[in-house]
Amino acid sequence: MSLRIGVIGAGAMGAAHVHMLHETVPSARVSEVFDADAARARQVAGSVSGRAAPSALAVVESDEVDAVLIAAPDFTHAELALACIAAGKPVLCEKPLALTAEESRSVVEAEVAGGQQLVQVGFMRRFDPSYRELKQTLTDGRLGEPRLVHHVHRNATSNTSTTDANLITGSMIHEFDLVRWLLDDEVASIAVASPIRDGFRDPQLATIVMMRGTLVSAEVFVNAKYGYDIRCEVVGTSGTASLVPPAHVSTRIGGAEGVPVGADFVVRFATAYQNELRAWTRDALYGVVTGPSAWDGHMANLVAEAGVRALESGTVEQVLLEPAPAFYSEGAR
Amino acid sequence: MSLRIGVIGAGAMGAAHVHMLHETVPSARVSEVFDADAARARQVAGSVSGRAAPSALAVVESDEVDAVLIAAPDFTHAELALACIAAGKPVLCEKPLALTAEESRSVVEAEVAGGQQLVQVGFMRRFDPSYRELKQTLTDGRLGEPRLVHHVHRNATSNTSTTDANLITGSMIHEFDLVRWLLDDEVASIAVASPIRDGFRDPQLATIVMMRGTLVSAEVFVNAKYGYDIRCEVVGTSGTASLVPPAHVSTRIGGAEGVPVGADFVVRFATAYQNELRAWTRDALYGVVTGPSAWDGHMANLVAEAGVRALESGTVEQVLLEPAPAFYSEGAR
Amino acid sequence: MSLRIGVIGAGAMGAAHVHMLHETVPSARVSEVFDADAARARQVAGSVSGRAAPSALAVVESDEVDAVLIAAPDFTHAELALACIAAGKPVLCEKPLALTAEESRSVVEAEVAGGQQLVQVGFMRRFDPSYRELKQTLTDGRLGEPRLVHHVHRNATSNTSTTDANLITGSMIHEFDLVRWLLDDEVASIAVASPIRDGFRDPQLATIVMMRGTLVSAEVFVNAKYGYDIRCEVVGTSGTASLVPPAHVSTRIGGAEGVPVGADFVVRFATAYQNELRAWTRDALYGVVTGPSAWDGHMANLVAEAGVRALESGTVEQVLLEPAPAFYSEGAR
Amino acid sequence: MSLRIGVIGAGAMGAAHVHMLHETVPSARVSEVFDADAARARQVAGSVSGRAAPSALAVVESDEVDAVLIAAPDFTHAELALACIAAGKPVLCEKPLALTAEESRSVVEAEVAGGQQLVQVGFMRRFDPSYRELKQTLTDGRLGEPRLVHHVHRNATSNTSTTDANLITGSMIHEFDLVRWLLDDEVASIAVASPIRDGFRDPQLATIVMMRGTLVSAEVFVNAKYGYDIRCEVVGTSGTASLVPPAHVSTRIGGAEGVPVGADFVVRFATAYQNELRAWTRDALYGVVTGPSAWDGHMANLVAEAGVRALESGTVEQVLLEPAPAFYSEGAR
Repeated sequence: MSLRIGVIGAGAMGAAHVHMLHETVPSARVSEVFDADAARARQVAGSVSGRAAPSALAVVESDEVDAVLIAAPDFTHAELALACIAAGKPVLCEKPLALTAEESRSVVEAEVAGGQQLVQVGFMRRFDPSYRELKQTLTDGRLGEPRLVHHVHRNATSNTSTTDANLITGSMIHEFDLVRWLLDDEVASIAVASPIRDGFRDPQLATIVMMRGTLVSAEVFVNAKYGYDIRCEVVGTSGTASLVPPAHVSTRIGGAEGVPVGADFVVRFATAYQNELRAWTRDALYGVVTGPSAWDGHMANLVAEAGVRALESGTVEQVLLEPAPAFYSEGAR
Repeated sequence: MSLRIGVIGAGAMGAAHVHMLHETVPSARVSEVFDADAARARQVAGSVSGRAAPSALAVVESDEVDAVLIAAPDFTHAELALACIAAGKPVLCEKPLALTAEESRSVVEAEVAGGQQLVQVGFMRRFDPSYRELKQTLTDGRLGEPRLVHHVHRNATSNTSTTDANLITGSMIHEFDLVRWLLDDEVASIAVASPIRDGFRDPQLATIVMMRGTLVSAEVFVNAKYGYDIRCEVVGTSGTASLVPPAHVSTRIGGAEGVPVGADFVVRFATAYQNELRAWTRDALYGVVTGPSAWDGHMANLVAEAGVRALESGTVEQVLLEPAPAFYSEGAR
Repeated sequence: MSLRIGVIGAGAMGAAHVHMLHETVPSARVSEVFDADAARARQVAGSVSGRAAPSALAVVESDEVDAVLIAAPDFTHAELALACIAAGKPVLCEKPLALTAEESRSVVEAEVAGGQQLVQVGFMRRFDPSYRELKQTLTDGRLGEPRLVHHVHRNATSNTSTTDANLITGSMIHEFDLVRWLLDDEVASIAVASPIRDGFRDPQLATIVMMRGTLVSAEVFVNAKYGYDIRCEVVGTSGTASLVPPAHVSTRIGGAEGVPVGADFVVRFATAYQNELRAWTRDALYGVVTGPSAWDGHMANLVAEAGVRALESGTVEQVLLEPAPAFYSEGAR
Repeated sequence: MSLRIGVIGAGAMGAAHVHMLHETVPSARVSEVFDADAARARQVAGSVSGRAAPSALAVVESDEVDAVLIAAPDFTHAELALACIAAGKPVLCEKPLALTAEESRSVVEAEVAGGQQLVQVGFMRRFDPSYRELKQTLTDGRLGEPRLVHHVHRNATSNTSTTDANLITGSMIHEFDLVRWLLDDEVASIAVASPIRDGFRDPQLATIVMMRGTLVSAEVFVNAKYGYDIRCEVVGTSGTASLVPPAHVSTRIGGAEGVPVGADFVVRFATAYQNELRAWTRDALYGVVTGPSAWDGHMANLVAEAGVRALESGTVEQVLLEPAPAFYSEGAR
């Protein structure tokens, strides 16, 4: 039995999802594709024997679509997620779940009201083998109690993040989700320092305190030039664990030893994306959500909003946590 | 369109192939499985909605089988490959292609006589991303002309290699194939040193000279205890390149920094196996062979036979090369 | 010509200095040693053919002493440095130069009034080959303009730092000096987060903003258990550079690859200490100070005081910079 | 008390020794220097307040010289070492001890006849902290019984080794000494492969079998272009240990992560040379030899001669071991 998937948005990310589904997930079939650029939709759909849909809502409501993947622009996410909930269809929504916490709260409320968990948010790093092994190392108890987490998130060039707030809501939001997931804890407060304005404020350095006291630093630098560089270290009371930078071959040429540094997050997280799609397809066939939930998407938004406030105020901002609906108690982790 | 695959041999390796085909290769479908242990065959076939076949030849000849994967014991390989050629069906045969060079030569001759390339040999390391990047680094010219290749091939414990010759014909044969593929050159001579006999001779250290003069060392040590460890370095006139040991997370605990060393070749080469199966499935649907050919399998056998002679004689043994049939000229790479 | 050195304080650090001077600095001779424990002083002095002195001031004033090394408890530093200035003798004073910025200011004022630079402060990391190469990499322009510096400073156990403020004034003070030296810039503000109180607040995470906008994080964790771990990364607009953890031998044993992590700062910085002593001895013979000056010691104290205020207030504290006396303009760097 | 040292040969290596003695070994004093180039000798001697000597023998016989360091051309080593023995003075002789095993045997015989151990050979790698830790790891038993040793010895360009035999007698001789020292075992046989003649045969790959069966590979490549690269791995029955390439700072710039690879053996082994000189000076003051002895120098020559025969014959050559005089039984290790 295959899951017939409708994909909304056939830009670089949407097309990448379509091809990964087609080439690496046997139980998935991309049946429909919508894009604002109709020719683009036809081309991407045709490459996998699917068909182009006339509108985003047509995808959601199609009889040929069992589940929906949203890779359209960020401002459409919340509305499309709500439509999927209304249609009772599983949906994998690229992050962020919504532009504001108010919007993401409405998605959560709709899902709770509908009585069935349907929404997964595209925090794909939870599916990366390195982050999973990092979490496992902590869960095993080998590090003792967590005391610090250090995140580094660097892009070679700023493609999408071009406002002060974007670095937090578009980039650092990954780190907000990861730290909740790694530590099984919520964010209590955040401060953000960023004295240099070069068009926009970049780099930014956040200091986060978790409810149980773990300290977190999160650096985002979207014009690091040298490459795409993602690092994470978890420091505990009896040891520390860090992601190992990925590399296949090391060379020694012309007086230098080295490995290539990738420039591209799609390459860095290729396995994470495949694992995400495979797990989501399986879950959708079973009618469950075990990946990052709408609640996780909403929580990340809450932290991001506090982060933006902190960037503006220059002081420590508290995150006003909301009680988690019992509905999500058997969720992602 | 799916490729219906019959799998002969449902031991650890055969079952692993069945599950990888099922979970990661959308255009493949395992339709039949044979194993000498019928219950085992039923169980493995059932797990992927295939059916058990009454005999190996029944798999080869079945109307429900478009292509055959041979993962049965080594002594059956040549005979089953010949049956596939007779049936005109594509076949992926685990290494070695045959127990002797005489046998592998007969497979080559049958394939040439049949006029169609059908046989691929399971030298899966050619599909490993690290080895491919290593070859690319050399092909790009960044290393200059190759002068040396160093191979290390260590197993934690000797599961299958338990005779002096086994270390060469069962383990080192991977390095024989790799060096031909990496250097696009043939082996001219081989010497093997192995003074310690601990049940059987282990470790063994081969010195190989290629036709164009590149020097190759190949160490096989099948009781290295500490883990499964595969290394390869290519040294050229302007630089050197080495495989980077795979690792996801590095820890610092109790006065030591470190990463885990795997114990298992299936884990180490998981991506290689998936790439191999995906490429072979695509090729079989197109009716071509672009992976390691019957000729590559035969050449590896020729080198292995010279290696066994060298181990016994204690001197340098020449590899008596045979001219490659033009049939294979657009073959393996 | 030898420099006759009087050493005040023969504890672990003082004795280590005495032996390093004796064994690795040909132009130095330890002529006198004072310690509150007279037997200890005799023993340490005797091991290098020096003699024990009856008091600290006797060392400073002795005709047999050309230059003084202060390794006595922190509270004595300022007074002894002032005595050396009064005696017109070069002095290498272990950090901190004084317990308070008020005290260190008085040392600066006395030195300026005396008209001759005599004081070097024991910020030995400036003499570490790795930190020097890091600074050189930045100075060469290969990293572009500095944007971030990340410091990690971990001890296996807290020997000396046992109050909240100690982690800043005793440990993090190294990072305050380093960042001034690496960036050739002054600290503008500091915030310190440290939610966990386990006896005292540990770990502590400082966020520093430099006058030219470079962001600095500095983690101090004095109960990290697993070892002594010092890291530093400088991130610029065109690249990043990090200290490489020191290691001589890597092992693969029992399923793990690894290198030892040292437990001891004397071992980690052995070369730095030797370089420091060799350079200071040479400078003292020439009558100059090219290492970290009294002004550098005072500046580090000013930042540390702001850090302690920040830890208490939970907010960003400005560092009230004082104008540097022209006297030091051809100083340390 | 100082050791007054006469240095014979003030070329690059000799001058480096003079300056290291002067700057880092307090108990040493370079009193005389001879070089065939008298101006050179005056300049080097003058830089350390020594004086130039009129001849090599004048150095050996001078009343101002307690011990002799030979850094003159290789062909002079044996004769000068014999002169030092005749004069009863400790001597540190750069490797090789002599051009032939016949010559080195005569030095051994003279030393034995004289009844006092006086000669140390400049196998400085025994004093390198990394090699020492490697040996310690093996001696501790953590690796189990040794089974393999892999050596790599690469120079960026061939300065001195310019004949087929030079690569063995001038370069690989370090590895011959190291393997004896690391394994506390003697070489039984050696084979050398080197098919490429580019002016002279380079690279060369030796396979050595030790008396207790340990297998050793030794690669020498003196035109590796990319840098000076020394590696060593010891593989035992329960684990493996390797030298870690030295590096201070790692950078990520322009899509590449890397560390510099040195070009120079004096830099790579700076600490080894200093340790060697410090230990030899101390030993000479005490009248003992604990470093590599004349016997070690002779044994390395014996292996090198077998290596040169093996390179010419293309077969395995036995090393005709001679019984070690009891005189050396409390020697180097």
